[in-house]
Amino acid sequence: MARNIDGTEISRVMRAEMAQQVAELQAAGVTPGLSVVLVGNNPASQAYVASKTRACETLGMKGQTLNLPEDVSKEELFAVIDRLNSDATVHGILVQLPLPAHLPYKAVLEHIHPDKDVDGFHPQNAGLAFVGDPRAFIPCTPAGILEMLRRENIPTRGKHVVIVGRSLIVSKPLASLLMAPGPDATVTITHRHTPDLAAFTRQADILIVAVGKQNLITADMVKPGVVVIDVGQNRVPDASSARGFKMVGDVDFDAVSQVAEAITPVPGGVGPMTITMLLANTLQAARARVTRSQPS
Amino acid sequence: MARNIDGTEISRVMRAEMAQQVAELQAAGVTPGLSVVLVGNNPASQAYVASKTRACETLGMKGQTLNLPEDVSKEELFAVIDRLNSDATVHGILVQLPLPAHLPYKAVLEHIHPDKDVDGFHPQNAGLAFVGDPRAFIPCTPAGILEMLRRENIPTRGKHVVIVGRSLIVSKPLASLLMAPGPDATVTITHRHTPDLAAFTRQADILIVAVGKQNLITADMVKPGVVVIDVGQNRVPDASSARGFKMVGDVDFDAVSQVAEAITPVPGGVGPMTITMLLANTLQAARARVTRSQPS
Repeated sequence: MARNIDGTEISRVMRAEMAQQVAELQAAGVTPGLSVVLVGNNPASQAYVASKTRACETLGMKGQTLNLPEDVSKEELFAVIDRLNSDATVHGILVQLPLPAHLPYKAVLEHIHPDKDVDGFHPQNAGLAFVGDPRAFIPCTPAGILEMLRRENIPTRGKHVVIVGRSLIVSKPLASLLMAPGPDATVTITHRHTPDLAAFTRQADILIVAVGKQNLITADMVKPGVVVIDVGQNRVPDASSARGFKMVGDVDFDAVSQVAEAITPVPGGVGPMTITMLLANTLQAARARVTRSQPS
Repeated sequence: MARNIDGTEISRVMRAEMAQQVAELQAAGVTPGLSVVLVGNNPASQAYVASKTRACETLGMKGQTLNLPEDVSKEELFAVIDRLNSDATVHGILVQLPLPAHLPYKAVLEHIHPDKDVDGFHPQNAGLAFVGDPRAFIPCTPAGILEMLRRENIPTRGKHVVIVGRSLIVSKPLASLLMAPGPDATVTITHRHTPDLAAFTRQADILIVAVGKQNLITADMVKPGVVVIDVGQNRVPDASSARGFKMVGDVDFDAVSQVAEAITPVPGGVGPMTITMLLANTLQAARARVTRSQPS
């Protein structure tokens, strides 16, 4: 029976460590600050943004939300970002996605100063991450997965990591990070055009699934002893829940747990790590600012 | 017996196409220009730079070499790059590597304006390429390999591409490009920490080898019908040659040719494509400049 990789518990430990680091920065006169820009009134986005800023405050960081109307113009949004870019008390900026269709999200993300791009979505950060530059902000979900593997003492060197999905914000950065010197994994990236998915997933020592499709991975598709990281977040009807739905991943959890060595549950696996890594990136941004402003 | 993929011939065809495009730009008043900065007197670098600028001129482009002394300071080198960055007649800039040890090559490459970075080594271009942005300059060797596959009508969708090596300028960009929508390949990246290399190379429909180790890939390591792209450039003693050496790739060419469907020879495979793609990138830079200066 697979061991559960408990993202909630790993997050709790990390956040306690970070609260200590925030206190040290504050003693040196710097309070790490995250500003979240939210356009419109999407309830899911509102809830997500609230949990991000609340998490900041729990750690002693400053969390601020700027709520702009649904019909804000590109120019107005850019002006808000300009102001945050030049505000020395703001170390991290993120614009909550998705944006309304009239706003060009790529240009918006590129407007955030790379030094404050704690989501790691600016092409300059993608490039720095790609070349292994330590200045890069790693997008939160891949960063969280690497941190989970490290803290669970799951080795990656010489292991075959199979990634299902090829998204720009999860799978591609993960592939790039895991194949690099240090993690040293052999990496295979599969996706909708992979003819025989099971032929690849069965080879995996570590299987990472980030597609968004319930029960995509069944027990016959993995080898005994595999470590499974399930990034899927799928909402399925559940009459027994007050909300009328529950969240499940991309992996048939109960069946695959019989075969795997370790597995992340959904919820409670990768999910909690994502906001934790956003906090870690904001802390990294604040520290980098302090370092830059030291006389050299 | 494998078909030879003739990089010299593909280059010839591409250069003829590009000469036509250069003529059209010239008729519109723009001569694409490439400036190569060469520091010191390394004979191999001198020869390589000369062949780059000569190739430019053959196409009707302007090729210029700036030769700086071995002991040039970082500040002097940056000043030269600044001047090229702001010179409207210069569309592409490349600094020939390797640089002397006292010059910080990463900072030097980042000093080139990304719009003129025709080698594609600036982190911003790496990032744009990573996210599939068409503004990106793709590094010349991976770009050349993709172009060869396209022009040889070798499909990649649904195919398993196995890459041996994980270099930042060849393997990683190739992996990123080949897994993306369009090429749609399933991609595996192997390297020195892959315990059983042959277990992976035998799965390859397309095998790309970029390590720099003679005879790394032998006939028993590939499956019948594989397409082999050999990026290796190894100098081996050859008494029958006037130079005393010959170039060979990473693949045991004679033996693997008995098994493969198609293979790139060394020399005459990937090598000739690299300078051709540098010319293509310079042309792309000149075109982008023309487009940007149009009233919108």
